Amino acid sequence: MSPQIDVSLLPGELSNIDLSGRSVVVVDLLRASTVIVHAMKNGARGIVPAASRGQAADIQAQMGRENTLMCGERMGLKIEGFDLGNSPLEYTPEVVAGKTLIFASSNGSAAFLATKTAARMAVGALVNARAVVDWVCESNSDCSIVCAGKLGQYSEEDTAAAGELVANLVDRGFEAGNDGARSAVLIAEHARNNWDSFLSQTDHGKYLSSLGFEADLKIAAKLDSETAVPEWADNRFALSGAIERIP
Amino acid sequence: MSPQIDVSLLPGELSNIDLSGRSVVVVDLLRASTVIVHAMKNGARGIVPAASRGQAADIQAQMGRENTLMCGERMGLKIEGFDLGNSPLEYTPEVVAGKTLIFASSNGSAAFLATKTAARMAVGALVNARAVVDWVCESNSDCSIVCAGKLGQYSEEDTAAAGELVANLVDRGFEAGNDGARSAVLIAEHARNNWDSFLSQTDHGKYLSSLGFEADLKIAAKLDSETAVPEWADNRFALSGAIERIP
Repeated sequence: MSPQIDVSLLPGELSNIDLSGRSVVVVDLLRASTVIVHAMKNGARGIVPAASRGQAADIQAQMGRENTLMCGERMGLKIEGFDLGNSPLEYTPEVVAGKTLIFASSNGSAAFLATKTAARMAVGALVNARAVVDWVCESNSDCSIVCAGKLGQYSEEDTAAAGELVANLVDRGFEAGNDGARSAVLIAEHARNNWDSFLSQTDHGKYLSSLGFEADLKIAAKLDSETAVPEWADNRFALSGAIERIP
Repeated sequence: MSPQIDVSLLPGELSNIDLSGRSVVVVDLLRASTVIVHAMKNGARGIVPAASRGQAADIQAQMGRENTLMCGERMGLKIEGFDLGNSPLEYTPEVVAGKTLIFASSNGSAAFLATKTAARMAVGALVNARAVVDWVCESNSDCSIVCAGKLGQYSEEDTAAAGELVANLVDRGFEAGNDGARSAVLIAEHARNNWDSFLSQTDHGKYLSSLGFEADLKIAAKLDSETAVPEWADNRFALSGAIERIP
């Protein structure tokens, strides 16, 4: 029997689902997933999600300030007193190489922490879509793609990116296993005509543009431009394939 | 400015949304919405949603047994001891005319009760799509369409039916106002090719078929076959236009 690929349009759908034994991909396209892929590509040592500002501070108190950066946003803007916000343009090699990033974004961080019981878990975006599909196919397990949404609300861009992954996984022998997966494919078929234009018309794309982050939308739309797959291990994300090197 | 039409893919999305001042349409296509439209067409006096079996019993104790029927399902099957389940075929004129139906379905009833703070609220399905669009257009208010989903999970058929309503409302001068509305239209564009076939391929369509309810899917797929609009007033649904006649 083909392995199944399911999509949850919101993390709240997970409450009754057992993720142990499954591969999970979390998508928060605008912008946590895109940011984390960029950070890993640019040499970040690891990403530790934090559920809140307070938890981020506790984690830094434990890990020390020297090799850590405090990262995250509220309402799209950098958290006061933090080192970095949620724009991929901030996560340059000069800033992030060798550092562990403590990451408190509004939706992505919560979705990561909600899925950490999965057998394996990775961060998916458009920029690393092909690489994430390869990562899923390394295992023959069923796969769940979890859309982060925005504060409990549906996000079309997360579902479109999930649909792009589903379409590719179906080409690789997976079967679309639930309503979410089938709907996501339909939305991706539309969005794929022009990811740039699609993202700029979503609710959150419009909001980010109003804050001056248009450039981030263009970066998020660059399908298959990166190969980094941030994979969960030891309570943080590290580059898949390099996980055994984490102390 | 054009009135806006939003879609919530799950009732859980409503937690931060103020519905007062809005027209709301609740869609639980398989099968509560379809059933209620049939019941109203066939002469039911009113439909009183109940959040649980226990609440349904309390309501009947208050209203008396003579002119009431206990209706509802769990896992698609009639609740033990109830008069009717959740198949439109049960709601014939002989059975329901003149009766008040106390209605405890798993998802629809919860969605109705979650939206009763709206300025006006109606039950929408494919069978009464055109009539519900007319009902929405009777007011110039913004409109929210709320998909019932299934036990907190996304239901593709509810969203497709919502998309059918959105597409028609956009033709009537409304503007698709959120990500959910735009995604719903994309799913409706696909489903519209063949509603019968689409419904039979959804998760809940497959489940209902496995229980022997294929005929209910065909009934639910009959676009614009009915004109009844069940509208909320005085803690129950009654036929829109006849509401002033309720005692």
